[in-house]
This record gives sequence, structure tokens and C-alpha cells, in this order.
Amino acid sequence: MANFDLMRRLTLDKGGKIILLVMDGVGGLPREQGGPTELEAAHTPNLDRLAREGSSGLSIPVARGVAPGSGPAHLALFGYDPLVYEIGRGVLEATGIGLQVNPGDVAIRGNFCTVDENGIITDRRAGRISTEEGAKRIEVLKDITLPGVEIDIEIAKEYRFAMVLRGAGLNGAIADTDPQQTGVPPLPAKALDPAAEKTAGLVNQWLAEARARLKGHEPANMATLRGFAMEPGLPKYGDVYKLKAACVAVYPMYKGVAGLVGMDVIPTSAHDTTADEFEHVARIWNDYDFVFCHIKYTDSRGEDGDFDAKVKVIEDVDEALPRLLDLNPDVLIVTGDHSTPATYRAHSWHPVPTLLWAPATHMTDRAQAYGERECIMGALGQFPAPDLMPMALAHAKRLQKFGA
Amino acid sequence: MANFDLMRRLTLDKGGKIILLVMDGVGGLPREQGGPTELEAAHTPNLDRLAREGSSGLSIPVARGVAPGSGPAHLALFGYDPLVYEIGRGVLEATGIGLQVNPGDVAIRGNFCTVDENGIITDRRAGRISTEEGAKRIEVLKDITLPGVEIDIEIAKEYRFAMVLRGAGLNGAIADTDPQQTGVPPLPAKALDPAAEKTAGLVNQWLAEARARLKGHEPANMATLRGFAMEPGLPKYGDVYKLKAACVAVYPMYKGVAGLVGMDVIPTSAHDTTADEFEHVARIWNDYDFVFCHIKYTDSRGEDGDFDAKVKVIEDVDEALPRLLDLNPDVLIVTGDHSTPATYRAHSWHPVPTLLWAPATHMTDRAQAYGERECIMGALGQFPAPDLMPMALAHAKRLQKFGA
Repeated sequence: MANFDLMRRLTLDKGGKIILLVMDGVGGLPREQGGPTELEAAHTPNLDRLAREGSSGLSIPVARGVAPGSGPAHLALFGYDPLVYEIGRGVLEATGIGLQVNPGDVAIRGNFCTVDENGIITDRRAGRISTEEGAKRIEVLKDITLPGVEIDIEIAKEYRFAMVLRGAGLNGAIADTDPQQTGVPPLPAKALDPAAEKTAGLVNQWLAEARARLKGHEPANMATLRGFAMEPGLPKYGDVYKLKAACVAVYPMYKGVAGLVGMDVIPTSAHDTTADEFEHVARIWNDYDFVFCHIKYTDSRGEDGDFDAKVKVIEDVDEALPRLLDLNPDVLIVTGDHSTPATYRAHSWHPVPTLLWAPATHMTDRAQAYGERECIMGALGQFPAPDLMPMALAHAKRLQKFGA
Repeated sequence: MANFDLMRRLTLDKGGKIILLVMDGVGGLPREQGGPTELEAAHTPNLDRLAREGSSGLSIPVARGVAPGSGPAHLALFGYDPLVYEIGRGVLEATGIGLQVNPGDVAIRGNFCTVDENGIITDRRAGRISTEEGAKRIEVLKDITLPGVEIDIEIAKEYRFAMVLRGAGLNGAIADTDPQQTGVPPLPAKALDPAAEKTAGLVNQWLAEARARLKGHEPANMATLRGFAMEPGLPKYGDVYKLKAACVAVYPMYKGVAGLVGMDVIPTSAHDTTADEFEHVARIWNDYDFVFCHIKYTDSRGEDGDFDAKVKVIEDVDEALPRLLDLNPDVLIVTGDHSTPATYRAHSWHPVPTLLWAPATHMTDRAQAYGERECIMGALGQFPAPDLMPMALAHAKRLQKFGA
């Protein structure tokens, strides 16, 4: 029985309330042999108390040895096996810059490129123009129209943009138009499935119009499209978990993935601090069973390779934590979507320190603090990340007994 | 997505270099209540240092409670789920005595037996003749020819031999000719699939000729054949892991399995010591990304029930280890294929002490030595043996991120 069939069968539509606090990339490594990790180095009296009282463990996002991107890593935390449920690249890119992707929509990644007078690509990235220059070209393309289709298009970064097509009968089974080399013209959009012929035709119409409008806008005088993908139709939180769920996050991509699984996305400002995010959680707390709260900067500082700055982000979270505890959640989970050790400067595969605090039902173990080595000794053991949601539901008394 | 599909998708063809050092049957049990295991009793300062610096854990070869044979246990270490990938008995027996088994070949196990004047089996094992006597009968059979087929045949041990048939259109779907009882004649070779009719006919031709030639060679005056199997067509290391891999082993069977997964098998002598094997590794180190080095005698002494001798083998490995460390591998894994406790005198199901040392990326845990009880506290936890290769590749920086 697939995980969700079991959940649909066992979940109750009442029970305790759950906070899932995700410090992105929280897991780390010692800076020097024998030294502490970022999490171990941070002064975190609140988190350490929760670890002493509750259960600790290590979560494996996708599979042992596999470093995940943010999309699959969050899907896993939300209970979706990321090897079964994949979000297409176009959808990730579009949601990542805040475009809405709804069922039936086709989302696409785009690159500005340079073509010569014969239409041959001379630079696949248009000289890596600035985001500002990219945004100017988007303005040129914004009012292209296609029959029966609504188009959303936004700059992502530099020469990259994202586009969402909305309309009846669209299909995303279309091959990339980026030929992945220079010296050849861009490819026409080609349907990979007969059902996508109509959409491919519309895309080619858009490309012709884009070429005409970008003429003279060198070096970004043409565009290629790739990563065509439909809204993935993921099972929704309300359906499989019977949870009214909300997302408090600052970065669009996490809002996007949360939206795809059926969470309500709470408006935030790009400048919100951790304390601000916790205020948002407090504000909406009465209206939801489950709140996912996402802290971005642990990952960012890890990717920067800045060990001390990552420690500081963790300490800020710990300092702000009483605001969440004051809400008296029945279950509070603190974890990461993956590890981002500052020494590694990238997402890694190391299992993620995880803390489950649920005073009515948690097993107290010997972990004395929230940190990698304490988690090794924890009651949760090492577990696949998609097992976290069933554990959260169980501790919230939202799962029936299986069988008689 | 099956494991290998994920690996094919994520592996890079560059990165760090890996040594997989397998002490066959290294896991053990205390000789007396409260005492140390073989590994814990051994004085192993080098291995203990690696354990202090790196990550420890326990590997589960096939499934909890299942003691594996050497074939599936090594497949698991090589990353192949042994419940999915099976090597047929004929192929294991043939590779075990050094016969080459290539795609399209049919490998077979054979027994000499005794038949009376009516062709009725009176002894299924020909009075357990000596290996020397068995080898004499093989000489009698060696130049039997079959149309369009090349035949390799060698004695294995006592009354047992192995045979490999090579040629176009062969098929191994053939039932055993050993009736598993006396008082009846050997069975004719019978195709289990219409595609094997031709091969079954050839085998019956061989059996008729063998009967004629063995007449008068009592007690081994006939042969039965069983375990018909094709080369298993396992995915290859070069393909799924993008690794140029070599095997340094003394016993033919481990060379055989390594060959079946696409490793280059380095010539060794049957009298090579552990130090000699490590010299072989050093000699070829520049030419390979991955070297599997197999130490046989931990298992042999465990099967003998000789606790102290097994301890000594482990100490010899530890003493020779600096030769491998001098090569500066990016990843060094020390493990066993299964446990062979001296008190048990056989392969057992106990999880196998495993040590992963990769100074750039390993998580230091609280294990202070390489031994069963320290491994229980290790950062790797308890894991299925096929997860070891993805972990090795990750630590060698040979795996891309999964998803964006």
C-alpha cells in the first residue's frame, strides 16, 4: 500500500496542532577534525531543552548518499517520496520566482540568447546580461498574445526567465528549443506526444513573435525555452492528511512547493526576519492545524561557506523560538530539508538533524542538545524524510489504529 | 525509480578515488558473555584512528536475519540488491574456480556419480572421490566436442566440477539432470523454455559421450549436471557508476563476481598475503577510480571456529593498512560482506561493522574504535549494504545533486 493510501485510510479530521519548522540546509560538518558542527557550535538553549525533553533523530531526504535540490527535499519533508513525485523544472523555476502554477498550466524556463543575422546561435546566454537588462527584454515580450491562452512571464536572474501558459487543453510534453550548442539555430518547439501538438504550435507562434520583438535588442535578441512541465497534480494536504495547512516562508520557491501540496501561502515580505516569520505564524495560528515555517538563511550562509554566519542564523532562530512555544503546539518539529555544511558550500547528502517535541507523547531519549552527534543517539533513529509527516500526525493524535 | 536509474542519472565521470576494503566475514560475536568480539579483541590502532576520525555504522547485507552466501553478500556491497539481482549457481561455481563466464555463456555445476550396469544411480557423489581423482576424470572429459560450442570444464572439489558452454544461441533454461535420489537413472537434460531446446539437445549429446568415456572409471562412472545458468547480465560499474574499477582478490570466486559487475580483475597469486594484496592495490592505483580489495582469511578462520586466529588476521590487516593510507584515497571504506562469528562457525546475519573515512566530507561521530559496539553509535546508523556505493560516490564527490 502506497504511503498516501495508508494515510488517507488512517487520518482523522481532528486532533492536535503541528508546527514544522524547517531551517534550510541546517545540517553541517565540523570545520576542523574533532570540532563542532555549525549546529553544535551554536548557543541554542531553547532548542537544546526541546531536544532533552523530546525525541531526536536523523532524516534521510531522498536516499543515502544523494544530495537533494530544494524542491525534492521539501517534497520529502511534506511526505512525498521524491523519487515518485517529481516537480518539473519549468514549474520549479516559475514557482521559484513567484508565478502561480495551477492544474492544467504549462510552466517553462527560458534563456535569452544571441543569434546572428542568419538566426544562428552565437551565445546561448546572451553575454550573461544583468538581471536589469533581462527585465527590460521581458517588458518587450510581456504583451505577446496567443489565442485562448493567458501568459505570465517574469525575469528570474540575468538571462533566465520563466513563463506560465494558462488555457484549455494545454500539454507540456514538448522538447527543449535550446539546442545546447552554438553554431546552430534554436530548435522549433516539438511535441513529444500528439496531445501536445496544439501547445507546441502556440509556443512556436510565441517564439516567432519574440524573435521579431527582440530584433535589435542585442545581445539578448532571441530566446530559447526548456523544462516544459505541467502542474504536477500532487496529492493535497487536505485530502491525504485532512489538515488545514499554511506556509510561512519568505522565498517564493518554498511558497510555490507548499502551494503545490495544497497549503495556504501566507503573504510575507522579502525582508521578514525569523522573528517576523514567527509573528506571522502566531497571527494565523487559530486558523490552521498545521503550519510549515521556512527559514532560508541557514542554507544561504552554508552555501557561502560562512560557518560563523550560519551559526548566527541558528542562534537567531533559537532566540525567537519562545514565540512559537507560546502558541502551545501539540507537535513541534525542527529539522532541515537537507544539510548544507559550510565546509562543503553546497547541499549535501548527510542525514539531517531532526527534533520532534510533543509533550503528550514523545519518547525522551539521551540527546542532551539539538546537534548532529546527539541526534545519532536519538529515539527517532535514522529515517526517510517522508516518514516525518506520519510521525507528526501520530503525535498529534490524528492517526487511527491500523487494523483491529 | 530503481537505484541504478538514479545512479545513472546522478553519477559524474570525475571525482575522488575510492578504496573498498572487504574483510570477508569480519563481523563476530563475543566468545564469552560480556567479552569482546574478534574485531574488538584485535589490536588495531590504524583502524581505530580511522573510526575516531570518520563515520561508523552497521551494514545489513540482504535483510535482517538473513545470512548471505558470498555471491549475494558481495553483490550487495557492490550496490546490487541481492533480492533483485541473482547470480545463478552454475555461474557462481564456474567463476568460483576461475572459469570465465561471458554474456551468452551457459555455466553448469556437475557432480560425478556412480551408476550400475543398468544406468541406475547407486551413489550421487561417486563415493566422495578426492579432488585428485576428480581431476583425472575431468581429463577424460576435456576433449569432448559439441558442434558450434566451445567447452570449458574444470574440477571444483572432490566429486564436483563446473562447465561453461560458449556459442551462438545457447540458453540456460534447463532442468537439473541430478534426480536428487539413488535407485533411478540420471534425468535427461530438459528444456524449461522452448528457446533452450537446442542447448538441451547439445547437453544430452555431451552426457551420452561422458557416459561412454567414464565407463570403467568407477566409482565416478557418470556425471549429473545442475544449476544451469546464463551470465547474469548485471549492470556494469562503468555504466552505472562511471567508475574505472579494479578487483584485488586472491580467491577466484570474488574475482568472478567482480568481473561480472565490470571490474578489471588484477592478477594475483594464491599465496599472496594481505601485504602483497595492498602492494597490488598500490601498483595499479594510478590507473583506477575505485579498487575493491578482498581479504579472505577473516571468514576462513571464523568458519574454522578459531577466534584467536581470526583476531590475528584482523591485526595483520591493520598492520599492513598504512600502505593503503599512503595512497591518499579520498574515500576508504572498511567493511565485511557478512559476519562469520567464530562461535557460530558459519556466515551469520549479524549486521556488519563498517567504517567510512573520507576526510573532506565525513561526519565525525562518537565511535572510538572499529568494532561492533562502537559501530552501533556511528553516524552511518544501520543501513542496507547496497546503500554503501551511493555513499562512497557522494563522499568522492561523484554524484550530482538530485533535482533543483
